[in-house]
This record gives sequence, structure tokens and C-alpha cells, in this order.
Amino acid sequence: MEKTAYVNGSYVPLSEAKVSVLDRGFLFADGIYEVAAVLDGKLVDNASHLARLERSVGEIRLELPETTARIEEIQKELVARNKLVNGMVYLEVTRGADTGRDFAFPKGVKPTLVMFTAEKDIVGSPAAKTGINVITVPDIRWERRDIKSVALLAQVLAKQAAAEAGAGEAWMIQDGKVTEGGSSSAFILTQDDVIVTRQNGSEILPGCTRKAVVALAEERQLRVEERAFSIEEALAAKEAFITSATVFVQAVVSIDGKKVGSGKPGPLTDRLREIYVEFAKATAV
Amino acid sequence: MEKTAYVNGSYVPLSEAKVSVLDRGFLFADGIYEVAAVLDGKLVDNASHLARLERSVGEIRLELPETTARIEEIQKELVARNKLVNGMVYLEVTRGADTGRDFAFPKGVKPTLVMFTAEKDIVGSPAAKTGINVITVPDIRWERRDIKSVALLAQVLAKQAAAEAGAGEAWMIQDGKVTEGGSSSAFILTQDDVIVTRQNGSEILPGCTRKAVVALAEERQLRVEERAFSIEEALAAKEAFITSATVFVQAVVSIDGKKVGSGKPGPLTDRLREIYVEFAKATAV
Repeated sequence: MEKTAYVNGSYVPLSEAKVSVLDRGFLFADGIYEVAAVLDGKLVDNASHLARLERSVGEIRLELPETTARIEEIQKELVARNKLVNGMVYLEVTRGADTGRDFAFPKGVKPTLVMFTAEKDIVGSPAAKTGINVITVPDIRWERRDIKSVALLAQVLAKQAAAEAGAGEAWMIQDGKVTEGGSSSAFILTQDDVIVTRQNGSEILPGCTRKAVVALAEERQLRVEERAFSIEEALAAKEAFITSATVFVQAVVSIDGKKVGSGKPGPLTDRLREIYVEFAKATAV
Repeated sequence: MEKTAYVNGSYVPLSEAKVSVLDRGFLFADGIYEVAAVLDGKLVDNASHLARLERSVGEIRLELPETTARIEEIQKELVARNKLVNGMVYLEVTRGADTGRDFAFPKGVKPTLVMFTAEKDIVGSPAAKTGINVITVPDIRWERRDIKSVALLAQVLAKQAAAEAGAGEAWMIQDGKVTEGGSSSAFILTQDDVIVTRQNGSEILPGCTRKAVVALAEERQLRVEERAFSIEEALAAKEAFITSATVFVQAVVSIDGKKVGSGKPGPLTDRLREIYVEFAKATAV
């Protein structure tokens, strides 16, 4: 059965879901996106995603065409129409389609809102059991990585390089330190049992799953330090892992072909994954 | 009369010219564009634009869906159908629309090719007579500015800031030097009559009009230096100007509210503009 997408007020078959060639998302990457996981037909940590959406659009002065409450209704409607059990809802808002192409913000143009869904068994993902390999690439992105914009070409190139190397993620390196993955946050567990992940700032996206995992770890009296770390430190660590809305917590078992820890998912990573899945199921709406 | 656009093999009314919401131009800014000026119904310096298009797509390993010869035929067909006398043809090629959203390159997906036109009296533009004001903004773009990708959000924000300040362009500053304008190349004429514009490299787009103007100046035994310059140097210069496919050569009369030279378009800028217009008319196809 063909899936349904949402485009500017209409529910349409995904194959007919289109935007104007003048849409500023298509011409200028002048848009913001979010991806929320769906577990058992419910949205995971969605308030956090919608709060970040509001922050991102604010940073580029794009007004949401709908309230976040209404956006959540549409997300749920799409999940229902697509009978989605496990997977994700993608949403993108752009500065709309003007009658021509001019860099400056258009006047009187309604922003575009697009949503579609995808199926994915996040909890039962094989990579959650095996862990993933990671490669490193230079971080060549712009300076406002805290804005979740669709200007993702650098990430596309990073993740393509990872795919070609048989890796599941690319960690981006700037000034000798890991910023984050192409579409995930990066963590290590040091030999003295400190969970380390880079502090928020314009160098990285403030990950929703990252934030939840840090909070869940701290609630359990685990030590967390938010600071930059190097690949050398990651290779000397007990464990490494990534977090994102669509993988939750996933072990990193090698970096650039070198084993991390035992070369298998570590116990802390497995525990945090379980804790996160429990949190996700308990709080999904 | 409604204008015609080109989308993947079809000529359609611009209002009906659409791409899938899964198009990677829309989701990832995974696309390249070019803008060629049209004078008297003919394409200006188009071979240079098509050569740069080939270079840009090569840098991100995107295969053009048509030969550049065929692309030029389509450009000309669009100019004819739209009875375009003076203006521009915009073209964008993206890595196409897959059946879902995954960062890595899709397999077996045909790239998207979109074109549309716009009218503009480039030669008779009032700004060519009065010159433009320029503001400065930090250059926060990614590190591969030599690739003419549609990941233009930083330029959108820069040019919006310019528009709000009553300026016609924003010069982007990195490490104390001008890289380029939001959608143009930056030049100055020093007190000892040297034309200075930044050397090509990953810090700037290799401007087609920049390249032609440099060649035309050198043919006339004018001294040209390709190197970075600061705003202080620009404010101490005799003249300043920008070049781009859709403004040709345009005087800069102030930077951040401070006069450049006499505060009016200078004689060298006017001369280079005339020389370029002559070149454009003589070589347009």
C-alpha cells in the first residue's frame, strides 16, 4: 500500500507529494527539519524535537506555518494513516515558494510544511547487537551546526564515505577533536568510567537523544562530562557509542579500522540502550 | 503569460513545475546550480557556466542526466518558449528522488534537472549607474565554497542582512579578509591602480564573470593581482566593485556606511563594465 505524505495542508500519496521548484528548500536549503522516532505507533521524545524545531526556525527567522501542537496532530494523523508501528516521521519546514528566486526573505509567502514516514525496526536493529564501524572525516560544515537545517551536503558526503568504507557512521573531526557523527551524537566511556560527549554549542547539533541519554545517565548517578574528545582518547576508551532519534543508542566497535575496547558492544552501552528504550516506550505519545 | 519551466524532460508552466518531496535537493541540498545571463535572447558566457557545472557535479560525484550540449539546447529552448530577451536562465541538478530518505548516495536513481527563466534588464539596471552599498558579515560557510551547491542558507542570511541594511550585497569576512559577496565576486582598485580580487581556492566560488573580467583587464594591460584583501584596504582603495552573472560589473560605493573612493562609481569600474557588456554581447550564443 502506498504511503501517505503531508504537504501544506493536504494528505497525498507519497509519489504525488511535491513542492514547487521555486521552494526555498529546493533552491537555497532555506529550511529546517526534524525526525521523530515512532515506537508501537507512538512518537518518541517528540516534545524535545518540537522544541528544537522552534529554536532552529527562530535562529533563521522562519515562522512555523502551524503551531507545534497542530504539527504534532499532523504527525499523529500520518502515523495513523500509514498504520506505522515502528519507524519515524520526517518533517521539514521551508521559507516557502516565492514567484521567483531571490536570496533575501520573500514577503507574504507562506512557509512550506512537509511530512512523511518511514518504517524501521529501531529496537530490533541488527546493528544494535553488533555495533557499527566508524570512520573519521574532516568536519567541513558551516559554523552554525546548532541549527538543524537541510543544508546537509557535507553530511551526505561524510556518510557516503562511511558507507563506502563499510562503516555505519562518519565522525567529523575539527581541530583534532570529534564534533559529532554525520547524523548522530558521539560518546565514549573512559577507562575511569566517565561518559564523555561534546558540550553543546555552535559546533554541534543539540541532539535530542543525546540530551535524554545524558539526563538518564545522570539520574542513575553515572558520571558524565560534556567536553570535546579526540580519536586517540576514543581508541583508548572502554566503550564508544552514538545516539540519534533513529538509532537510539548504538555501540561503536571500531574507528578507522581500529578496535574500540573489546571490539564488541560494551556493557554500559547496552545498559544505556535498554534504559533509553524503556524511557522511549514509557514517554511516547 | 505564464512562463514555462523545464523539469526532467518536460516543459511545464512554472506554477506546475514541481519536484518530489523526496528530491535530494529538497532534503539534503544535494544539488548544484548555475545561472547564466541572457542578453538579446542569447546566453552569456555559457560555456564557462557549463564547464563550472561539470566541475561542481564532479566534486560531489553527481552525474549529469544530460550532456552539457543537450543542457544548452534546453536552455535555448526555454529562452525561446519564454520569449526571453534580457534576464537569466537558472538551472539546478540534484541527485534525484529515491523512494526514501537516506544520506548515502542512492543507487539507480536518475538525477533531477530543473530550469526556469527570469526577466532582468541587466545592462540598464539602475544600480549599475548609482553603485551599491555593501555590508560586511562573518563568513560562516562550509569549507568547499568552490562547489556551487544549493546549500545556500548562509548566503541567504548574509543577503537578508544586506537587504535590511539597505545594501545590495554582503561581503563575507574570514580571518580579517574578504572572501566574496553572498552571490558575487569582490574586487578593489588600489591607489596604485592594481585591480585586486581574491585568488581561487576552496574559500571562494570560481566566478565565471570574475574570470572573464580578469582576462579582459589583462588583455588591456591593466594590472591584476589575485590575492586576499581586507576591508581597511578596500576603504583606502580608489574603487571597489562586484561581478556576477546577473549584475555583470557593479560599483560598490560604500562599505558598512563608509564611502569607497569618491562615493560614486569610479571610472575603471565603469570602463570594465562597458568592456564586459561588449564581450557579453559579442560572444553570447
